[in-house]
Amino acid sequence: VTGEAEGRPLAPVVGMIGAGQLARMTCQAAIGLGIGFRVLAGSARDSAAQVCAGVRVGDYTSLPDLLAFAAECDVVTFDHEHVPGPHLAALERAVPVRPGAAALRHTQDKLAMRERLATLGVPCPRYTPVSDLAAVTAFAARSGWPVVLKAVSGGYDGRGVWICGTPDEAAEVLGHGVAVIAEEHIDFDRELAVLAARSPHGQGAVYPVVQTVQRDGICHEVLAPALWLSAGRAREAQQLALGLAAELEVTGLLAVELFETPRGLLVNELAMRPHNSGHWTIEGAVTSQFEQHLRAVLDLPLGAPGAVAPQVVMANVFGGPDPGVYGRYLHVMAADPGVKVHLYGKQVRPGRKIGHVTVAGDPALGDQLRERAGRAARYLATGKD
Amino acid sequence: VTGEAEGRPLAPVVGMIGAGQLARMTCQAAIGLGIGFRVLAGSARDSAAQVCAGVRVGDYTSLPDLLAFAAECDVVTFDHEHVPGPHLAALERAVPVRPGAAALRHTQDKLAMRERLATLGVPCPRYTPVSDLAAVTAFAARSGWPVVLKAVSGGYDGRGVWICGTPDEAAEVLGHGVAVIAEEHIDFDRELAVLAARSPHGQGAVYPVVQTVQRDGICHEVLAPALWLSAGRAREAQQLALGLAAELEVTGLLAVELFETPRGLLVNELAMRPHNSGHWTIEGAVTSQFEQHLRAVLDLPLGAPGAVAPQVVMANVFGGPDPGVYGRYLHVMAADPGVKVHLYGKQVRPGRKIGHVTVAGDPALGDQLRERAGRAARYLATGKD
Repeated sequence: VTGEAEGRPLAPVVGMIGAGQLARMTCQAAIGLGIGFRVLAGSARDSAAQVCAGVRVGDYTSLPDLLAFAAECDVVTFDHEHVPGPHLAALERAVPVRPGAAALRHTQDKLAMRERLATLGVPCPRYTPVSDLAAVTAFAARSGWPVVLKAVSGGYDGRGVWICGTPDEAAEVLGHGVAVIAEEHIDFDRELAVLAARSPHGQGAVYPVVQTVQRDGICHEVLAPALWLSAGRAREAQQLALGLAAELEVTGLLAVELFETPRGLLVNELAMRPHNSGHWTIEGAVTSQFEQHLRAVLDLPLGAPGAVAPQVVMANVFGGPDPGVYGRYLHVMAADPGVKVHLYGKQVRPGRKIGHVTVAGDPALGDQLRERAGRAARYLATGKD
Repeated sequence: VTGEAEGRPLAPVVGMIGAGQLARMTCQAAIGLGIGFRVLAGSARDSAAQVCAGVRVGDYTSLPDLLAFAAECDVVTFDHEHVPGPHLAALERAVPVRPGAAALRHTQDKLAMRERLATLGVPCPRYTPVSDLAAVTAFAARSGWPVVLKAVSGGYDGRGVWICGTPDEAAEVLGHGVAVIAEEHIDFDRELAVLAARSPHGQGAVYPVVQTVQRDGICHEVLAPALWLSAGRAREAQQLALGLAAELEVTGLLAVELFETPRGLLVNELAMRPHNSGHWTIEGAVTSQFEQHLRAVLDLPLGAPGAVAPQVVMANVFGGPDPGVYGRYLHVMAADPGVKVHLYGKQVRPGRKIGHVTVAGDPALGDQLRERAGRAARYLATGKD
């Protein structure tokens, strides 16, 4: 607890396991709320460890490290989903863990997630566990090629999803010996995401539905709200997220990635933490996703999730060949005094996500928000207009 | 510098002398910009020292402490105006200091400030330096009682301004042996404030003019923009602030506190740092005053200062008898999910400013912003509705 008066704790300490950019931005929100905030970081150079006053360096796969960290915290939450399940169960005996192990399992085990969603009647792509090429080709005989192979957990070479156009490509993935499921490849109209929060009390709050624009499986752009989304479709997505958060007993944030298809909405992925698709809320919503996550894991009443501008656009910034991103502030800020830059303090490597930019405004008044955000993100990455 | 690649600095380090709530909120802004940020704190329990990853504990009246701190920073700025003038001059030989000693003098020496403003033809209350009661009564013979006595710098008992209704009251102040000036007591219509930023390049940016509501000389409420302020009067105040920032060669923020009177605007006080009258900009403006101050002292292009909502209200939160402010979050957040709470991590003492709340909305749509902000601030302070 931070500070005591007459033996009474004044404000609780939230501990976040993992110290990437999500923890970094959660740290900013914790400062405003006046609560304690600590991170368990793999290294003192991690994105959040650079800026957080309460850093423990440790290994999230080591139970002693986790327990030592938990002893400094009133509640523990996560910047990623990689803490081993058995460790989560042990942690839960030491400290409130939010979200809990039972909920988190659905982000750690894609087969368990699909099976649970199927049980709940939530529309998903067709899927099946596969252990050999015969099973993949049998699945493809029904759903067609390409087939999407997804690691049940983890993956290799930093990836966990492979779109396989041929049996040879599938065989190559299977050759790595990682447990996978096969999913039908969805020819979607676009990708949407919806972010809900749920507190231990059971209060729920849901953000406007956003559109995510991916390239090569990586989110480049988020449009909040999604463009030309019907009120009925938006409500359907929001109710799906709120319902799932309740069914899975999520405490904290639940991000639901969706495909919009001619046969309706299909759930692609789940995450139970602040999410890239919610970074727009820092400037664009009454309550940022980072503050909302803290309020939820502390079992405080949730904040208003509504947008504060007609349209908000977020663009991710990726590393380019030149690491001197700060040197490009001069141009970006002079060119557009309204763009909000967020850098994560990460070492620049080509293709690595190192920050994001946000712009908010009213397209009905002619504001070219996508152009503005895209230009700033591109220039920060490459130094080219 | 934070991080190097091939010997090149990646982002500069801003050092702030003082670690109160202004440094705390500047720290939040620095995290977003991905720059380094350090504070020189009197104690590790100071508001900003609790949350900042780069804390040096030291004494801002000790030149060795200041120089040791400056050696860790690329540019030095301030959370308060109390660094002794000769130390500032020495600091300036070691590191860029923004604002510089010559500008800061106008916030450290009220006589110098009044004389400079008079030279510039800026309208101010009538004033005169006074060294004895005869001088005060002679001044009062022209301007009437009460007379305002202001310490030229510092003061006593935590105060630097005294409104004296009688010669006896003036004699009591003079008896403390502090150098003072006498100012006429202004029967103002209301108090306004305007915040400008200026970079070393000379770029200026100015925020909308706000109205400040004081009780017993302490700001309780800020209305942004000021209610029913004519466009001409607003422009006059903004031009005054921009002009003063240029004339005084301010680098960073300049806050100008104004009296609105039947004879026009009069300058009451100046500050060259983030200011309580600008806290509304965190949620209410495209660029918060804290980010703006960082951009200015780093000589980056300034951010857009425009408001993002038709009306924003900030109310300060003062300590009450019960230190358990966090315990009152439950009620405040449940009662109003749209209120933004900022607590400073300060020990609660009756009457001490420990945080603020902000609400934004549109009064034309019936949003009772002052009632909402006032209620949340009052409840956080007292636990009473």
